[in-house]
Amino acid sequence: MKLVTYRRHPADAGRLGAIVDDMVVDLERLGEATGEPLPATMLDFIDLGPDAVRVASELLAEMEGDWPLGCTQPLANVTLMAPIPRTRKNVFGIGLNYVKHIEESARSLDTSADMPEKPVVFSKPPTAIIGPDEPILHNASMTQQLDWEVELAVIIGTTATRIREEDAMAHVFGYSVMLDVSARDNRRAGQWIFSKGQDSYAPFGPCIVTADEIPNPHNLDLWLTKNGEEKQRSNTGFMYFKIHTLIADISSGMTLEPGDVIATGTPEGVGAGRDPQEWMWPGDVIEYGVEGIGMMRNPVVKIG
Amino acid sequence: MKLVTYRRHPADAGRLGAIVDDMVVDLERLGEATGEPLPATMLDFIDLGPDAVRVASELLAEMEGDWPLGCTQPLANVTLMAPIPRTRKNVFGIGLNYVKHIEESARSLDTSADMPEKPVVFSKPPTAIIGPDEPILHNASMTQQLDWEVELAVIIGTTATRIREEDAMAHVFGYSVMLDVSARDNRRAGQWIFSKGQDSYAPFGPCIVTADEIPNPHNLDLWLTKNGEEKQRSNTGFMYFKIHTLIADISSGMTLEPGDVIATGTPEGVGAGRDPQEWMWPGDVIEYGVEGIGMMRNPVVKIG
Repeated sequence: MKLVTYRRHPADAGRLGAIVDDMVVDLERLGEATGEPLPATMLDFIDLGPDAVRVASELLAEMEGDWPLGCTQPLANVTLMAPIPRTRKNVFGIGLNYVKHIEESARSLDTSADMPEKPVVFSKPPTAIIGPDEPILHNASMTQQLDWEVELAVIIGTTATRIREEDAMAHVFGYSVMLDVSARDNRRAGQWIFSKGQDSYAPFGPCIVTADEIPNPHNLDLWLTKNGEEKQRSNTGFMYFKIHTLIADISSGMTLEPGDVIATGTPEGVGAGRDPQEWMWPGDVIEYGVEGIGMMRNPVVKIG
Repeated sequence: MKLVTYRRHPADAGRLGAIVDDMVVDLERLGEATGEPLPATMLDFIDLGPDAVRVASELLAEMEGDWPLGCTQPLANVTLMAPIPRTRKNVFGIGLNYVKHIEESARSLDTSADMPEKPVVFSKPPTAIIGPDEPILHNASMTQQLDWEVELAVIIGTTATRIREEDAMAHVFGYSVMLDVSARDNRRAGQWIFSKGQDSYAPFGPCIVTADEIPNPHNLDLWLTKNGEEKQRSNTGFMYFKIHTLIADISSGMTLEPGDVIATGTPEGVGAGRDPQEWMWPGDVIEYGVEGIGMMRNPVVKIG
């Protein structure tokens, strides 16, 4: 399933939907119409565990093309939000996880050229999350080095504490796309949270594809353009630490909870690594995506 | 008010209480008995804003010594939990914020001896929070350098986005105590979250003292002992960046929300800075506190 959080009107709370062709199927309403209770929000759905994914998938397959009235809307009539809006859950990021990005970072930033021995974990506060088409905020009094990083995002489905690598993938609910926006000149004693955690610095969406539909998350193309010009293109196969390693590693110390997000690192092609260096400025439009999940678009807008 | 989250039985959800002498007054029940609606949890109370603090304070003063039956319990009969249990909110920490700690860190860790130009912000995931008397987990397969850092914690009361220093203190709900536990050997490319964010690495409590009762948070003694031996003793007056500066600075990029916690940094006397260096080991008992707020005690316990 391609799951989304959507709304019809700006004041609406986000509701859980599934994308089928060019329609959004509201899962709670479909459940009400068919006597199969399903929740109204993504986090409540994730909390129900793998059975809910199976039940909802079967129900969608069974009802397809014969939707009860009131359960569907044209995709064009709704607004997609971040799949887990301002989640209040953890958003973990992984730095330096594609070999060519490690090389370009060592040339252009203050990081080591050596492969890291352990995943370089950082976090973004949930307040940083925005959805499709929402603006990335550019505050020129704070940064002149606002950079892009397209990443595959992993959504945790079940609580994971000290999980072995061989058991890790069972804790994945699904996959999405995250832009790890970074103000390179806002690092503090090397700490990244202020440079990567500001409001709007975690664009996220457009959907979560459930894990059953992506049997191999380590072979997905990912790409990014700025104003239509390609800046990043690679494949998740070039990740240095794979997803099962990331889950095992993080959960060795920090419990992962349902709805937590792990942004798995970016490939080469970021602005800091280019010659000459390039940054995002108000008026720019950033488009990016991951194969099999979808594409995102965010404009850069001046504040402050 | 000295506000706590307490429970009577291990399976109970935490409830909001106020400490009066050696009693816990349950605020929701006191509200029911007096016709003044008050919420059952700390986060719901914080969300109500400053009026709720005033109403509850007045009600407590009015009813003191004449409590309706069922509203109070002896403090000895309840268990105090972290004031905002596993909050799902942001926990921000400030590194290198006491001058003598900056000096000892430069000698013993990899940080600069220069005063930082801006506050060094990091974060701990809410999953790291534990309450009074709960164990700090020591996993010897992960760390041989588990360190202590006693800190004054600031609890945000109202949403703060790009707040000026002169307006910052109006956004403070109250103050508490946090132990910033750090596995010094678990830093990753300099990032601190894995070294400071593991499960149990944010002991927090025993109460939140509302801001009206602490007119000057920059003149409070704070201290820590390990197995009864004093390791840290200083005063919040030695903070390099004061609380109004921290709130203005963080909120310049990252919106602070009600219930967010800022741990304001530790003074000198941490294990890494001692000669010879000292660490926490299973069997140790750490006691620490901040003047006017209270004291905490946590045992160190082996896992893994």
